[in-house]
Amino acid sequence: MNIITIKEARDRLYKLQRKQAAYDHAMGLIYYDGSTTAPKDTAENRAASLSILSEEMYKLGTSKETVDLLEFLDGFKDKLAQKEQRMVELLLKDIRFMQKIPMDEYVAYQELLVKADDVWHKAKESSDFAMFCPLLEQIFDTVRRFAAYQDPDKDPYDYWLNEYEDGLNKQICDEFFGKLRSRIVPLLKKVSEKPQVDDSIRFGNFPEEKQEELSYYLMETMGLDLGHVGLATTEHPFTTSLGSHLDERITTHYHEDDFLSSMYSVIHEGGHALYDTGSADDLAYTVLDGGVSMGIHESQSRFYENLLGRSRAFCAFIFPKLCELFPKQMEGRSAEELYKAVNQAEPSLIRTEADEVTYSLHVMVRYELEKRVMSGELAVKELPAEWNKLYKEYLGVDVPDDKHGVLQDSHWSGGAIGYFPSYALGSAYGAQFLSKMKESVDVDKCLETGDFKPLNAWNREHIWQYGALYKPGELLERVLSGAFDPEYYINYLEDKCKDVYGL
Amino acid sequence: MNIITIKEARDRLYKLQRKQAAYDHAMGLIYYDGSTTAPKDTAENRAASLSILSEEMYKLGTSKETVDLLEFLDGFKDKLAQKEQRMVELLLKDIRFMQKIPMDEYVAYQELLVKADDVWHKAKESSDFAMFCPLLEQIFDTVRRFAAYQDPDKDPYDYWLNEYEDGLNKQICDEFFGKLRSRIVPLLKKVSEKPQVDDSIRFGNFPEEKQEELSYYLMETMGLDLGHVGLATTEHPFTTSLGSHLDERITTHYHEDDFLSSMYSVIHEGGHALYDTGSADDLAYTVLDGGVSMGIHESQSRFYENLLGRSRAFCAFIFPKLCELFPKQMEGRSAEELYKAVNQAEPSLIRTEADEVTYSLHVMVRYELEKRVMSGELAVKELPAEWNKLYKEYLGVDVPDDKHGVLQDSHWSGGAIGYFPSYALGSAYGAQFLSKMKESVDVDKCLETGDFKPLNAWNREHIWQYGALYKPGELLERVLSGAFDPEYYINYLEDKCKDVYGL
Repeated sequence: MNIITIKEARDRLYKLQRKQAAYDHAMGLIYYDGSTTAPKDTAENRAASLSILSEEMYKLGTSKETVDLLEFLDGFKDKLAQKEQRMVELLLKDIRFMQKIPMDEYVAYQELLVKADDVWHKAKESSDFAMFCPLLEQIFDTVRRFAAYQDPDKDPYDYWLNEYEDGLNKQICDEFFGKLRSRIVPLLKKVSEKPQVDDSIRFGNFPEEKQEELSYYLMETMGLDLGHVGLATTEHPFTTSLGSHLDERITTHYHEDDFLSSMYSVIHEGGHALYDTGSADDLAYTVLDGGVSMGIHESQSRFYENLLGRSRAFCAFIFPKLCELFPKQMEGRSAEELYKAVNQAEPSLIRTEADEVTYSLHVMVRYELEKRVMSGELAVKELPAEWNKLYKEYLGVDVPDDKHGVLQDSHWSGGAIGYFPSYALGSAYGAQFLSKMKESVDVDKCLETGDFKPLNAWNREHIWQYGALYKPGELLERVLSGAFDPEYYINYLEDKCKDVYGL
Repeated sequence: MNIITIKEARDRLYKLQRKQAAYDHAMGLIYYDGSTTAPKDTAENRAASLSILSEEMYKLGTSKETVDLLEFLDGFKDKLAQKEQRMVELLLKDIRFMQKIPMDEYVAYQELLVKADDVWHKAKESSDFAMFCPLLEQIFDTVRRFAAYQDPDKDPYDYWLNEYEDGLNKQICDEFFGKLRSRIVPLLKKVSEKPQVDDSIRFGNFPEEKQEELSYYLMETMGLDLGHVGLATTEHPFTTSLGSHLDERITTHYHEDDFLSSMYSVIHEGGHALYDTGSADDLAYTVLDGGVSMGIHESQSRFYENLLGRSRAFCAFIFPKLCELFPKQMEGRSAEELYKAVNQAEPSLIRTEADEVTYSLHVMVRYELEKRVMSGELAVKELPAEWNKLYKEYLGVDVPDDKHGVLQDSHWSGGAIGYFPSYALGSAYGAQFLSKMKESVDVDKCLETGDFKPLNAWNREHIWQYGALYKPGELLERVLSGAFDPEYYINYLEDKCKDVYGL
């Protein structure tokens, strides 16, 4: 690289990230368009464009010019602002990862994932694991091999856990899930001995346009800035940033026979969007924009959805609005009935539809199986039987077929091995955040009056504004002024069940 | 350039265009998103991304590698297929254009246009031409200078007319508009002496969702493939291809008090979309995809909107559907009333709302003024007064202010000097196409039964499939087996007025 000044290099660093943000914007929007408004036979065009744009972005991120720039800046760390040091660190991390993988293997893996996604869809449709099995074997083999390229001395599953949630490993997970299991399984048993709560309030006929009105009301109540956050309808709800946290989109799915499905999707995705859009404005168009990890992200989405959204106080606040929107359906109902219905605990087969209490058990099954396959203790072809066995053991349910069992999630076909634990961790982070927040904010009072300002201000001050500036572990320490402790989460679940089921 | 084979070079040619199509897709979609669903305060993010992506696309299109490739292929023209020769020609044309303009002047011009767009909006809002005048002076100066860079011996206005419609110049325009004016002005005078037709059928209360149903019915009737053509709502209707004619979007705008506005927008934009999506599939992802010029494009959109859509036969076909959708509003009405209402001729102030007969007079005013300013005969600051004078002379209307006069269109603030004539030309092409089509297709019978297949088949065979393979002049000659003659258009307008007004 030609000799340049630190100032010039710093300028180039921001310029590089601005470019990457533009590609992120383009690719994110093409994906979003495909899920929302694109005509149905246009997938081929999107695939063609995405493949070209991602190749361009890859070239940009790994070009000699980029590598030289980042290494130059890395050599002058002490001359950089803290956030710039972190940018260089994150950008170099991706490059180092790529540099250690032979290009032909990387390309072959991308092709494998495209094929696996297609086969997984078909296998799920026909509930036929055998069809998907050979591809999943290749995926496990590849992620094991890639982990070894990165760090031959590290356990490969530890490597990937740490990739998805910086600082995580099997030991932490074992301890975390062990504690959870030892308390949640008996808790669930106690709940099952009580009469099930009445959730009939959620069912009926709830016209889509009224539910949409509710969505916007919830978004405004939560303090989302509708000038920067859009809402659309998709098959599966999601949140996406388009290049910058200043252009954020959430989606939901309306079921006219059950209004709670969309209501809690909106609050969940709204939580993600609050975190993203809460990044300090000077992080826009940088890699630090919009949140640090899946775990912290889920801590926010599940915080709003569950810890706040399923509280008695929030149910009391939202009930009059429901009466206004659905006067007939809410006739003779009460806020207390709503509170019980949204906190029903009931073992089930599908993770994404699980309630708060059983949710982490679904995650545990996946963690346990991934761990064993990664270590070679379990063969991929043995997964369906083991899956069914663990569901019986943890949740007490019989899995009727692979569609409702081992084939239900898209993560494995996408190569995301080690990703699931962050879902459960996020929930647990959130419970401890809430306890901390309550030291200075009267949370219940805020929820009863629908005043989210103090709640958001706390999250912004402690979490959102930093984006990806701090690693998840560092951030947790700063927020909690101490170590992460799953006890808060377990206590929260126990208290909730006691209250709802009168244990 | 390293020595490569023709085959390799040809492969690279297609690859280059695929890349350009991906950038077109991304940028088109960002624009489309901004007009349809983006949250209101996200324009800054779109501007940032568009600026970066267009710079990347510019670099791709003008890099030494690209220039070398195209010059290499240009040297072996005889070894290329006809369509490949045309691709090289079109791609080189853009490069040659850029090569002749000093980079700093080009950049300054882009910045001028961004500023001019902003100032024009404000000036229009406050009806204050003086605010916009200095910027428009700079724009005229620049386009004059840029034309001289391209060809110092050519009249600058001729240069730009030819840019927007290959083959066009002042002489052709003067002759064309001269003929039009000499027949349309007296025609309009005769019409004005007759009692105005009753257009009350269009006004009332037409719920948006019913109008949307009509939109989809029209799109299907016209033969648009809804798997590849989407519909959305925007302030101003438009059509856009997203990287390929296989992913096409049209938009409309609903006025609940007047259903005809959206109905004819859908048919107009649907005509553009039929032309685009009618390109042969092997033109997808190339510069030949989706139509050759503005003039030919307008010939198709206005063909469907006016020549077909405002015919007595089509009115008879669509009227029962209107009765089904708007039973109350259509009570006691007839297809004949609809026919008269959609063919009302009435001088007005705004081009985009003008009827078929007066439309070209609006265009003529703009042509006349552009021509005089470009030659230096008229100063930019004299435009408002001259505009108002010509509107009185051609259309007989008094312009109350610049908002409804010289500031109404966005073209000049966008630097599009020489663009307007193609609108009028397109209408005239269409009339001659219709006459030719009638030699082999029973057009009225098709329209009466809503059977657009034979009409579309004719257009596909003669026009659509070729995309930009032939220059507009060549295409016209092929379609018409003879020269373009505005007589067809004028006769059509006269016949229409005779029929509607009983002249």
